[in-house]
Amino acid sequence: MMTLDELKGYIRNIPDFPEKGIMFRDITTLLKDERALRESIVHLNRAVYGIPFDYVVGPESRGFIFGMPVAYEMDKGFIPVRKKGKLPAEVISKEYDLEYGTATIEMHKDALKPGDKVVVIDDLLATGGTAKAIKELVESAGATVAKFVFLIELEGLNGKEALGDTPYASVLKY
Amino acid sequence: MMTLDELKGYIRNIPDFPEKGIMFRDITTLLKDERALRESIVHLNRAVYGIPFDYVVGPESRGFIFGMPVAYEMDKGFIPVRKKGKLPAEVISKEYDLEYGTATIEMHKDALKPGDKVVVIDDLLATGGTAKAIKELVESAGATVAKFVFLIELEGLNGKEALGDTPYASVLKY
Repeated sequence: MMTLDELKGYIRNIPDFPEKGIMFRDITTLLKDERALRESIVHLNRAVYGIPFDYVVGPESRGFIFGMPVAYEMDKGFIPVRKKGKLPAEVISKEYDLEYGTATIEMHKDALKPGDKVVVIDDLLATGGTAKAIKELVESAGATVAKFVFLIELEGLNGKEALGDTPYASVLKY
Repeated sequence: MMTLDELKGYIRNIPDFPEKGIMFRDITTLLKDERALRESIVHLNRAVYGIPFDYVVGPESRGFIFGMPVAYEMDKGFIPVRKKGKLPAEVISKEYDLEYGTATIEMHKDALKPGDKVVVIDDLLATGGTAKAIKELVESAGATVAKFVFLIELEGLNGKEALGDTPYASVLKY
């Protein structure tokens, strides 16, 4: 078992990506190490353990990376949220603001039914824009987000405000 | 334990996506069912069990979905292959032909070292173009692909030809 500081040591810090002034937290160095990968998933699993929920929801594409092992380990189904135009059947969509411009995420219309409870797993809580859009998408299907779980939280950006009163957890904080 | 035909029953067939004349094999209905998800991963794990390898390589983004649970279960690191411009550190790139135009995939330059052995996991073997490009990317780093494993193979497109003499397995055949 690693400490959280040891686990954090597997994340590579890359200045000025994707643009000047941003310190990018690169998870590929963590994923490459089998112990760091495993411990990351253990932490995410612990954050959802004991919560009643029906599905893991993960957004394209780093939410796929962390969401799928949790779904597998918790014996739940996995529901992908994707960028516009990627899902083949009928979708519900949500457009949301980015720093420059907008983005649209989609989920299959028949993925969730009223009363379903999901946990949303993603690599990063930054401003919370994507998380908020996912919450609205889930709720527009009549379902609810039982909890958000992130591997990394950039606390200075205060993204937790965007989650409203939905419980959340993050493993590594910057 | 399901039969392969039962597992296949969880894949939704969507005609004319992404374009006219294509029968799209939609895995989201399989992912949503916790038993079908689990059994899919069990089959993929079985296909790599006993093979000496160092890392699981998975291409964006459905390769993330199936590659990560295998890496987790097999206690290996995971190396993502991404579309152009997504990886933050120095990359090696491979451009390859699509039906219309070209695509470029990238891997971090320091992800693999000479002598490393990887298994490549993806959802679909169609024409094999992506798989071939991944193989060339891995080999350009001095590493080798020990095996390709796909959840679905479209046998009529003969994608296995593109894999050369690298061993491969597929779980569900169409």
